[in-house]
Amino acid sequence: MTDIRPTLGVGLVGYAFMGRVHSQAWRSVGAFFDLPVRASMTVLAGRSPSVADAAAGLGWTHAVTDWRDLVARDDVHIVDICAPGDAHAEIALAALAAGKHVLCEKPLANTVAEAEEMAAAAEKAAARGVLSMVGFNYRRVPAVALARDLVAAGRLGAIRHVRAQYLQDWIVDPEHPLVWRLDRERAGSGALGDIGAHIIDMAQFVTGEAVTGVSALTETFVRERPLPGGGGRGPVTVDDAAVFLARMTGGALATFEATRFASGRKNALRLEVNGSLGSLSFDFESLNDLWFHDHTLPPEEAGFRRVIATEAGHPYAGAWWPPGHGLGYEHTFTHEIRDFLEAVATRTPPAPSFTDGLQVQRVLAAVEASAAADSHWTPIP
Amino acid sequence: MTDIRPTLGVGLVGYAFMGRVHSQAWRSVGAFFDLPVRASMTVLAGRSPSVADAAAGLGWTHAVTDWRDLVARDDVHIVDICAPGDAHAEIALAALAAGKHVLCEKPLANTVAEAEEMAAAAEKAAARGVLSMVGFNYRRVPAVALARDLVAAGRLGAIRHVRAQYLQDWIVDPEHPLVWRLDRERAGSGALGDIGAHIIDMAQFVTGEAVTGVSALTETFVRERPLPGGGGRGPVTVDDAAVFLARMTGGALATFEATRFASGRKNALRLEVNGSLGSLSFDFESLNDLWFHDHTLPPEEAGFRRVIATEAGHPYAGAWWPPGHGLGYEHTFTHEIRDFLEAVATRTPPAPSFTDGLQVQRVLAAVEASAAADSHWTPIP
Amino acid sequence: MTDIRPTLGVGLVGYAFMGRVHSQAWRSVGAFFDLPVRASMTVLAGRSPSVADAAAGLGWTHAVTDWRDLVARDDVHIVDICAPGDAHAEIALAALAAGKHVLCEKPLANTVAEAEEMAAAAEKAAARGVLSMVGFNYRRVPAVALARDLVAAGRLGAIRHVRAQYLQDWIVDPEHPLVWRLDRERAGSGALGDIGAHIIDMAQFVTGEAVTGVSALTETFVRERPLPGGGGRGPVTVDDAAVFLARMTGGALATFEATRFASGRKNALRLEVNGSLGSLSFDFESLNDLWFHDHTLPPEEAGFRRVIATEAGHPYAGAWWPPGHGLGYEHTFTHEIRDFLEAVATRTPPAPSFTDGLQVQRVLAAVEASAAADSHWTPIP
Amino acid sequence: MTDIRPTLGVGLVGYAFMGRVHSQAWRSVGAFFDLPVRASMTVLAGRSPSVADAAAGLGWTHAVTDWRDLVARDDVHIVDICAPGDAHAEIALAALAAGKHVLCEKPLANTVAEAEEMAAAAEKAAARGVLSMVGFNYRRVPAVALARDLVAAGRLGAIRHVRAQYLQDWIVDPEHPLVWRLDRERAGSGALGDIGAHIIDMAQFVTGEAVTGVSALTETFVRERPLPGGGGRGPVTVDDAAVFLARMTGGALATFEATRFASGRKNALRLEVNGSLGSLSFDFESLNDLWFHDHTLPPEEAGFRRVIATEAGHPYAGAWWPPGHGLGYEHTFTHEIRDFLEAVATRTPPAPSFTDGLQVQRVLAAVEASAAADSHWTPIP
Repeated sequence: MTDIRPTLGVGLVGYAFMGRVHSQAWRSVGAFFDLPVRASMTVLAGRSPSVADAAAGLGWTHAVTDWRDLVARDDVHIVDICAPGDAHAEIALAALAAGKHVLCEKPLANTVAEAEEMAAAAEKAAARGVLSMVGFNYRRVPAVALARDLVAAGRLGAIRHVRAQYLQDWIVDPEHPLVWRLDRERAGSGALGDIGAHIIDMAQFVTGEAVTGVSALTETFVRERPLPGGGGRGPVTVDDAAVFLARMTGGALATFEATRFASGRKNALRLEVNGSLGSLSFDFESLNDLWFHDHTLPPEEAGFRRVIATEAGHPYAGAWWPPGHGLGYEHTFTHEIRDFLEAVATRTPPAPSFTDGLQVQRVLAAVEASAAADSHWTPIP
Repeated sequence: MTDIRPTLGVGLVGYAFMGRVHSQAWRSVGAFFDLPVRASMTVLAGRSPSVADAAAGLGWTHAVTDWRDLVARDDVHIVDICAPGDAHAEIALAALAAGKHVLCEKPLANTVAEAEEMAAAAEKAAARGVLSMVGFNYRRVPAVALARDLVAAGRLGAIRHVRAQYLQDWIVDPEHPLVWRLDRERAGSGALGDIGAHIIDMAQFVTGEAVTGVSALTETFVRERPLPGGGGRGPVTVDDAAVFLARMTGGALATFEATRFASGRKNALRLEVNGSLGSLSFDFESLNDLWFHDHTLPPEEAGFRRVIATEAGHPYAGAWWPPGHGLGYEHTFTHEIRDFLEAVATRTPPAPSFTDGLQVQRVLAAVEASAAADSHWTPIP
Repeated sequence: MTDIRPTLGVGLVGYAFMGRVHSQAWRSVGAFFDLPVRASMTVLAGRSPSVADAAAGLGWTHAVTDWRDLVARDDVHIVDICAPGDAHAEIALAALAAGKHVLCEKPLANTVAEAEEMAAAAEKAAARGVLSMVGFNYRRVPAVALARDLVAAGRLGAIRHVRAQYLQDWIVDPEHPLVWRLDRERAGSGALGDIGAHIIDMAQFVTGEAVTGVSALTETFVRERPLPGGGGRGPVTVDDAAVFLARMTGGALATFEATRFASGRKNALRLEVNGSLGSLSFDFESLNDLWFHDHTLPPEEAGFRRVIATEAGHPYAGAWWPPGHGLGYEHTFTHEIRDFLEAVATRTPPAPSFTDGLQVQRVLAAVEASAAADSHWTPIP
Repeated sequence: MTDIRPTLGVGLVGYAFMGRVHSQAWRSVGAFFDLPVRASMTVLAGRSPSVADAAAGLGWTHAVTDWRDLVARDDVHIVDICAPGDAHAEIALAALAAGKHVLCEKPLANTVAEAEEMAAAAEKAAARGVLSMVGFNYRRVPAVALARDLVAAGRLGAIRHVRAQYLQDWIVDPEHPLVWRLDRERAGSGALGDIGAHIIDMAQFVTGEAVTGVSALTETFVRERPLPGGGGRGPVTVDDAAVFLARMTGGALATFEATRFASGRKNALRLEVNGSLGSLSFDFESLNDLWFHDHTLPPEEAGFRRVIATEAGHPYAGAWWPPGHGLGYEHTFTHEIRDFLEAVATRTPPAPSFTDGLQVQRVLAAVEASAAADSHWTPIP
């Protein structure tokens, strides 16, 4: 049988951590999902000459050292941006201008201004059929997508509480070097933008409600760290941790916490939502599980139940293995790319859009503003 | 062998929920702990004539309908106050004035002013050898006392994060009647004072640090409820939930949440503390367990371990049953009374003192002030 | 109001571990349960002269050093036997002969022959209105009683699997002394009779089915241990661990394991039951929780749910504290005594009867027989 | 940089569930592990003409409908056998005879006789530098490999207990059709060979000890099921569940249970090992976690700790993502293939060998023999 599906060429920018996981997703997506298009891993861009070896190892046909060469290619229809945040805007704007569909890693940008420009460009491009999406991959954990489905089906009733945490511990040691993620110039912010952005998006995605305002504290516990190359210490210019209170559009109270100082918590992205009819709880450290409490059951037999989100009827899960055969971190990206390709093929706007990414950026900015103003309540514009 | 220990007469005021659990503790303490004094369950006070039956059922020798009669008795040396919060100050002041040692349920009072008066009276009484203590019973969960010991021994290093929640769900249903706990006149506040007070005390107790300021939100989700006796609805005049950010004296960031709207959470008093050398986690819904992460171990074998706090070497646990034979809620009160009797017998000031109770009251007041002022940062005096 | 209920005098034999916990139960039961009779803690029997101090400390009015004096008293109506297993038969037979109701600790006896004699005597006594019961206290954990209720209501359908374990670790250290529990003369058997008896009873109680046959292995890992008084070593003459397969009357396959060598497991009495319509799981190390899986739900939302068995509608729980305020080990005895008093007052045969205790004894004997015969299948008579 | 590594051509036989997951592993292994050889996905064999589409979808260059054509190719150096168990022997023998390295799915064969022939052939081939391995993939869960490392390092001391379960529930419904896995002719046995084989291998692998004998029960709960194509019912000719007791070479007692009737358990492959110095516990339903109890710690701070096996220093984990970013089911196969390629490249005999697979087969046969002989103790030859 001849494969008569159209083929889309993909160009990936960046091959560090994010580039590697995106590559695995591009490599895998076609074997598990019936897609209306074929994706060809055409070209990888990276600034170092070692990009050629990386391309070979990761399965990309070509390699370039200037992302502009990638954007310029006729055989590239999709640009996947895994470069650091300060490069997102320039690449995305160029790619959209060139008529390429764009998948951009989160956070959308390092500043609200950049994000606004990107969202505006994305909307204009959409009018021409050029689509874009921001990569909040954790939405695509089957257990999280299931959580969204349960809320959307009304199973939680009115949302009263959101409890979101993203806890890591990789810089607890004060001798951990001053890597680029601890430099405001390049990273934009610290734990806030890196991992706080994920819980803002997830809380909004699962509840279907938006954050309307915040009151915040941020802290840098270790103010100086060894320079990576040796030779003394330099200042940490981003937050080590951020905590904030929020209200959601439906009236719920929310607490958020993003930190790299929670000793023993490795990638504890947690969300609990309490509603008038039920509750949900999730922790990425047990990523295949969604805990669901159905408050409409008799109290004698109610309780949080562990739904292992690997059933054929669960979001995404049917494409993989039998029940109980757990998925991992990288699958969230495979699902993201699957949804993106589906959207591109059907000319349907994918979610989360750049406008969604901009809204998260505005929450991040409000958190910083509140923290700088004695935690004063700061509405999201 | 003749028991030559002195006997102290106890008078208990109140025999609702708190009075019942205190009675069980007074009845049990002598059988499990070697005490330097004997406690005699002398008299129970309650406003209703049914107090006589209650006294018989709960093991008290006498019953009175006016607490003043209890305070006036020569054979009462200890007054245990389990009346509602708005009565604490008057009873405690009278008892201290009469030279009785006082154990007073939390929160110490309904207002800072009352609490200040009580703390001042307690300090004056202490100078005369008359002691007083406020009943934050959850300090006496063996797992919580163990947590305190581990922090005090330096096992957590510098404290970076405190994450405290007290989650209940008993008024999720909007048809739950307007009971006295939902009336500001009598209860002082809602979830904040009732259960928020416990997590403030526990966070301060375990870390050995004080809350220095807060930024807060409170909410009343259901504004009107059926009157208990039928015949229409009345307004809920207290908070249903309170969330607040805080800083601790050592520089840690803290989040607090007290709510009666967390569907499926019954008595989830939770505390997690992250430090530079380790972390601790506790949830009262599994009250015998303390989770401890030792961050000084090699990462390959580190992780949160479940310490079942029932070993002979654990606080209080040796007095009870063999390892793994769990304790329950009421034991926290038995431990509290044991510590109080020990303090009285040895003339050592017990903890938490009325001054400690006052400080918690100040935090509660700051939370309300911040919530009323756009979450503005509000220092604790 | 005058209490017009009849009063029954209680005599307790033994005041070691079991005697202490029974005392606490007798002391507490009347304060929490509305009983049709009053129980008076009349007399404590123990062989050592220190029984007088023990009686005072534990709340018993009189003390005797010969249990025969206890049985002979007119003011004793109930005899509660907490002496070691080799004394059960003699005391129980004498008490029944004297017309006393008998509550006897498990295992009913050290041999099937003794148990048969006791069961026969109990049946004869019952005809005269004299009741008896064997103390398998773990049936009275609310979560376990709830498990029984769910099975009885048909919620599990046809039972397919029983998985029962009782794991302890108190003699892992080969230097642990040769205490009486390691001596066949006095203890009858080792882990098998001491803790294996509990899981046999619990498995049969929860499923409502009986063990029909077994195939078994037993082992003594440490064959010699230091004598308690010093001065050399002596042989361990009981099993350290016993494992056995079984079939239940309804056709289920069962596995049982009782051991004192499961390092890190303190009192892990575990039962899982899988049926065609649902499953249950329990572990005493989290004694307030019952895990229930309802297999009739859609697979997308099914999963084991944690039912915290502290709701007013749960067995026994309504007598105590609000939801989520956990109970402990000793409450199982309070419930046992409550049920026993209820049975005595209403002249209803209590469960588990001596005949039930005899049946457990027969399973224990079959386990030993099978282990001695190359694990050959051994039916229960 | 030119890649100067030798390239080995791979031929895969079978493209159902196992073939799909092996394909994903072959596709991924080179991107994550530095291998001394390159593997080329040369040819896929399957009996149906649809193998061509499957090959395209799964990433194989060629497709054949007769596995003999695959074995005959000069550009195939490795034969990976994912066909049903009754075909293993013929294919493996042919491939070894043709000088191909062989990776064969478990169980090695459907009978001991076939397995013996295969093991003999494998040993002969090994003398010629042709290697073979049986695919017990669960050894390559990082948490399980870590468990092995801890035991090998002496951290558990003398092993006392092994508790192994593999619980599934996919045929609880009596209307589930009579698929090939329920037919003895094709599947060899039921739960026993399919999933029981895994826990036998895992128990032996982790402890480093062998099963020396067994006492067993098997059961078929549902004896007739609907034929897959409709038109009546047919007999189930394999076991639905198998339970057995065992002893290990070091003297430990072991319990094993394999079932497809554990409602609510999806892929609960569980192993607990208790030793004189510590314990380990694993459940594949939380595959990234190993629970480790260090019994040499003071009891006051000891307990089972959750080691999330995603640290750079954990087996295999460093090749993937940062700590806490969990792996899934399929990664176990990627690790298996990585180890196999490493072994082939370095001419080191890989484990588990066909001889290891034969030994598991002998245990399976002994289980069936014991079950057929009143559970009589049956030594492993």
